[in-house]
Amino acid sequence: METGSEQRRYFEHLDAIDPLRDMRALFDVRDDRIFFNGNSLGPPPRQTWHRLHEGLRQWRDEMNAAWWDRQWLQLPTLTGDRIGGLLGAAPGQVVVGESTSVNLFKLLCGAVELQFDGGRRPVILTDLDNFPSDLYIADGVTRYVHREATVRRVPTEEITEHIGTDVAVVMLSHVDYRTAQLLPMQRINERAHAAGALVLWDLSHSAGVVPLDLDGAGTDLAVGCGYKYLNGGPGAPGYMYVAQRLLPRFEQPATGWLGHMRPFDFTPGYLPDPGIARLTTGCPPLLSLLALDEGVALTAQADPAAVRAKSVALGTEFIELAGTRLARYGVEVTGPADSAQRGSHVSLRSDSAERLAKGLADRGFHLELRPPDLLRFGLAPLYIRHVDVFDCVAAMEELLAEESADTVRDGSRP
Amino acid sequence: METGSEQRRYFEHLDAIDPLRDMRALFDVRDDRIFFNGNSLGPPPRQTWHRLHEGLRQWRDEMNAAWWDRQWLQLPTLTGDRIGGLLGAAPGQVVVGESTSVNLFKLLCGAVELQFDGGRRPVILTDLDNFPSDLYIADGVTRYVHREATVRRVPTEEITEHIGTDVAVVMLSHVDYRTAQLLPMQRINERAHAAGALVLWDLSHSAGVVPLDLDGAGTDLAVGCGYKYLNGGPGAPGYMYVAQRLLPRFEQPATGWLGHMRPFDFTPGYLPDPGIARLTTGCPPLLSLLALDEGVALTAQADPAAVRAKSVALGTEFIELAGTRLARYGVEVTGPADSAQRGSHVSLRSDSAERLAKGLADRGFHLELRPPDLLRFGLAPLYIRHVDVFDCVAAMEELLAEESADTVRDGSRP
Repeated sequence: METGSEQRRYFEHLDAIDPLRDMRALFDVRDDRIFFNGNSLGPPPRQTWHRLHEGLRQWRDEMNAAWWDRQWLQLPTLTGDRIGGLLGAAPGQVVVGESTSVNLFKLLCGAVELQFDGGRRPVILTDLDNFPSDLYIADGVTRYVHREATVRRVPTEEITEHIGTDVAVVMLSHVDYRTAQLLPMQRINERAHAAGALVLWDLSHSAGVVPLDLDGAGTDLAVGCGYKYLNGGPGAPGYMYVAQRLLPRFEQPATGWLGHMRPFDFTPGYLPDPGIARLTTGCPPLLSLLALDEGVALTAQADPAAVRAKSVALGTEFIELAGTRLARYGVEVTGPADSAQRGSHVSLRSDSAERLAKGLADRGFHLELRPPDLLRFGLAPLYIRHVDVFDCVAAMEELLAEESADTVRDGSRP
Repeated sequence: METGSEQRRYFEHLDAIDPLRDMRALFDVRDDRIFFNGNSLGPPPRQTWHRLHEGLRQWRDEMNAAWWDRQWLQLPTLTGDRIGGLLGAAPGQVVVGESTSVNLFKLLCGAVELQFDGGRRPVILTDLDNFPSDLYIADGVTRYVHREATVRRVPTEEITEHIGTDVAVVMLSHVDYRTAQLLPMQRINERAHAAGALVLWDLSHSAGVVPLDLDGAGTDLAVGCGYKYLNGGPGAPGYMYVAQRLLPRFEQPATGWLGHMRPFDFTPGYLPDPGIARLTTGCPPLLSLLALDEGVALTAQADPAAVRAKSVALGTEFIELAGTRLARYGVEVTGPADSAQRGSHVSLRSDSAERLAKGLADRGFHLELRPPDLLRFGLAPLYIRHVDVFDCVAAMEELLAEESADTVRDGSRP
């Protein structure tokens, strides 16, 4: 077995030949901190500071006129198209809206509206492990909007067998927020379409890090967030995708002026924009939107195949190192071992999770603790290095070894 | 009659004794431009640049942890309480949400839900001249959410006589976006309550510039925008007010995780926060929210009575100067002559509106043109000076005199 230091040089070598190695310099990341929670909040692109300065100058110097002269009004669709490039969506099908949850609400209302069909399709089908906010939104839609509809929650692995003719919409997360389980989008789309159902995907944990081909997979509807792997900043607005074939018939309930065909005619009656802008409602939060646009622009510079290859490599290294160095301390890897079924984060289960998180934070590694016993490590290939994975696992091994020694000294069970 | 220059000195004197004269220096406003469209978008407070820098630094250095350590998660309610101070609302009743239109959608859905009562109150009552986006939202609510409900639009002056026992919610703008007509909030609240209806106010054109006492006026519900007189920046998120007495029973349909009592427990069932946070849904767009908080903080420094007094004075001066100097060219003042019934903007009607807007812009005066013939001048007392009003009317007079001379030279009718 290699010594730690020899093994570390191997990971340094992987970084030296990494085709994405120059991307890290485009982010404003501190060298004394390793952020393994870019799956919660990506770091600021260096360019974001300049973009916000420019936005502030335009606000000061041009005030209201900048909505037209600087295309602020078009930014939700312009940034939407930029995001579409990452999703495999042709232009005109993606628009930036509010938070992921509000966007999901709009799309779910619209999807049930489109499908309900005299009550023959009353079911929104989802999985028990879906992100809680997505479940809450589905409950809200059936409780307050489509009272005739119901939510059916089933285990993830049983989803396809529950897609019957009573299902209006299948609502799923593409990558599970805890286990990183990656669902087969095209297969589920096909199964749903065969039964007359639509599928609404939440791409929050896949966009920017898992290759996507929404158009090619025959996807109907999707939402996703802007602040994780799209590096759009804290609370960055999310986006909505509606396939072109559905768009002319697609209606959402929050019909505000910016979704109007001609908002500045100030006519008393609502006429939806013929395109994707019909999904929008009010003024976008422009400063946050500028930061999102910059984050997306940076993300789009990387080759998606290289991003996926490095993501898979980082995940595999993490899991292998955890297996050889941490398993003896009772640390378990959760989620799929097969990289083809895995997104870009790894979750470890440990009775020492809280102490590990604290010890890692003290050594400059940031990650997410999901009490009581889960540690989640986001592996963002644009700024996480192979050696970071090695160092992080080595730090955990040290912390666990110290704890174990302390326990032995205290006379408790080892 | 005074000469122009003597008269101008009178307005300069008003500025010299203006108790708000020091506020202007807190804004980053250019001396070569006068923005009479702060009723569309207020200018950046100087402090906003620093606040955004600080936010970017926290994002870079602390990433996700800043949501807790910097109270980003609490900011929607903290900024909400700050806004509440401007609205005459005790703490715990105001929260920042999405755009004004999305916020209105949520409150209107919740209000009809609360009131519908087995179909006995199917009507949302509003006025024909309400802001179009508000009308569109009401239509969306009755079309997609409360299909049993209908919208009834009546002339503004007939509102109170239409408040019958079939009315669930009266939805009005406190200040009309065109005429600046200011409605008697307390009287309408009382009339509605006597008939068992709730009132939902849009404060977009009054908050920050017209004294408000929501609690004292017995107000039920309100929304408003952050980017006009609150100086929160382009597309700043808006806010929602729900009176404490309604809050425990008030439900809104977009039930996302941040409206949950304990969002980070990740429980599968939705339990609304007991307080005003139940109105929230997803992550707030933090950079835009920081700018809003800064704008509100600046606005709250001014004495509301002084703001109203100056606003009334600027409006009266504008109307009087327009009467003596522009009426002969066919320019008409629209909206209430009585300042007690007027908000903080003045609209002029003129056949030369488009040419005037262009000529004024060339001389550094920015305002809003509402085609075909309306010019709207926002009078924000924190940074508009008395002499700006004088100079603006003088510039219009010059432009109209030149046009008139040109017409005479051309041999057309004068």
